[in-house]
Amino acid sequence: MRDSYHEELDSIGEGLVDMARMVGSAMGRATAALLDADLQLAESVIAGDEKVDDLQRELETRAIQLLARQQPVATDLRIVVTSLRMSADLERAGDLAQHVAKLARLRYPGRCIPDDLHATVLEMGQLAQRLMAKTAEVVTTKNVDLALELEQDDDRMDYLHRKIFQHLMDDRWKHGIETAVDVTLIGRYYERFADHAVSCAGRVVYLVTGEHADELNTTAPVEGA
Amino acid sequence: MRDSYHEELDSIGEGLVDMARMVGSAMGRATAALLDADLQLAESVIAGDEKVDDLQRELETRAIQLLARQQPVATDLRIVVTSLRMSADLERAGDLAQHVAKLARLRYPGRCIPDDLHATVLEMGQLAQRLMAKTAEVVTTKNVDLALELEQDDDRMDYLHRKIFQHLMDDRWKHGIETAVDVTLIGRYYERFADHAVSCAGRVVYLVTGEHADELNTTAPVEGA
Repeated sequence: MRDSYHEELDSIGEGLVDMARMVGSAMGRATAALLDADLQLAESVIAGDEKVDDLQRELETRAIQLLARQQPVATDLRIVVTSLRMSADLERAGDLAQHVAKLARLRYPGRCIPDDLHATVLEMGQLAQRLMAKTAEVVTTKNVDLALELEQDDDRMDYLHRKIFQHLMDDRWKHGIETAVDVTLIGRYYERFADHAVSCAGRVVYLVTGEHADELNTTAPVEGA
Repeated sequence: MRDSYHEELDSIGEGLVDMARMVGSAMGRATAALLDADLQLAESVIAGDEKVDDLQRELETRAIQLLARQQPVATDLRIVVTSLRMSADLERAGDLAQHVAKLARLRYPGRCIPDDLHATVLEMGQLAQRLMAKTAEVVTTKNVDLALELEQDDDRMDYLHRKIFQHLMDDRWKHGIETAVDVTLIGRYYERFADHAVSCAGRVVYLVTGEHADELNTTAPVEGA
C-alpha cells in the first residue's frame, strides 16, 4: 500500500493527465469549429476553458499543501515543483485552444481558413491533439522514448507552420489581408500549443533521466519529416 | 540582521528584479532595432536572451534549494513558489523581445513596420518597457497601487493592439501580405509581453493582499484611455 504522501503525489499526476486530455480535446474541437464554422462547438470550447483553469488552480493548491505538509526533498521536491510548471504549461495550452475557437466565433458564419489551407490546418489540429495525447501518456508512463518522439512530431508542426508562412508570402495569395492575419495567428496558436506539450513531456524526461530531452535526441530532426 | 533564510529569499527577489530589468531593456532595444532596421542591435538582443535564460535557471535552482533546506510553510512557501512562476513569466517575456529582434533581423535591410504604423509600434515598445520597469518596482516595493496602475497600462496596450488590427483590416492597407503578417506577429509579441509583466505584478499583489489584482481594481478600465 502506498503512503499518503505518494498517494497525494500520484493524484497530482492524475490531475495533470486530466488537464492534458481536456486541452487536447479542446484543441481538437476548436479545430473542427474553425474548419466547419461551427458556432455552437466554438462556444463550448470557449466556455470549457474555465474547467481547465479551475483544475490548474486546484492542482496548484494541492501541490503547495503537499510542500507544506510533507516537506519533500531531493527528487520528490523536484517532482512537485515540476508539476507546478506542467500545470502552467497545460493551462496556457488550454488558452490557445480557446483562442482558436474565438477566431472561429469572430468570423462566423464565415470561415477563417481558405480551402487551399484546409488540409494543412486540419493536420496541424490533429497533430496538436496527438502531441497532447502523447504528453498525457508520458506523464502516466514516464516513457522517455515516447517523450523523444514528441520532439519529432514538433518538427512536423514547425514544418507545417513554415508551410503556412510560405503560402502567405506567395504572390498568388488571393484571400486578402483579413484572412492573412487570421491564418498568421492561427498558425502561431498551434505552434505554441505544440511547444507547451513538448515542454511538459520534456519536464518528465528531465525528472526521469536528469537530462534535457534535446540532449538525449541523438538523431537529428529531419526537416519536414 | 536578517537570518540566512530571509537573505536567500531577498536575493531571489533581487534576481527577479534583475531579470525584469534585463527583459525590459531587451524589449526597448528590440523596438529600436525594429524601427531603425539596426542589424547589430537586433543581433545583440538575440544573443543577450541567453543571459536571461541562465538567470532564470539559476533562480529556479536557488528556489528549489531554499525549499529543500529551509522547508518554509504558509506565506514563505507561497513566496518561493510564486517566485518560480514569476521567473517563468520573465523568461517568456525575454523570448518575446527576442522574437521582435529576430523579425527585425529577418527583414534587414528592409523594415517590417510601415511609416503609418511607426508611432503606434514605438508607443507599444515604450509601453512594454515601462510596464516591465513598473513590474520590477512592484517586486522591490510591494506597492499594490503601482501594481494596479499596470492594469491600466495594459488596457492601453490592448487598445494599441486593436488599433493595429483595425489598420490592417482597413481597405486602404497598401503594404501587402508580408508586412501584414509581420505586423500581426509583432502586435501579438508586445501584447503578450505586457501580459507577462502584468501577471508578475499581479502575483505580488496576491502575495501581499491575498486577492487577485482584477478584484481590487474598482475603477472600470476606460477603453483606449
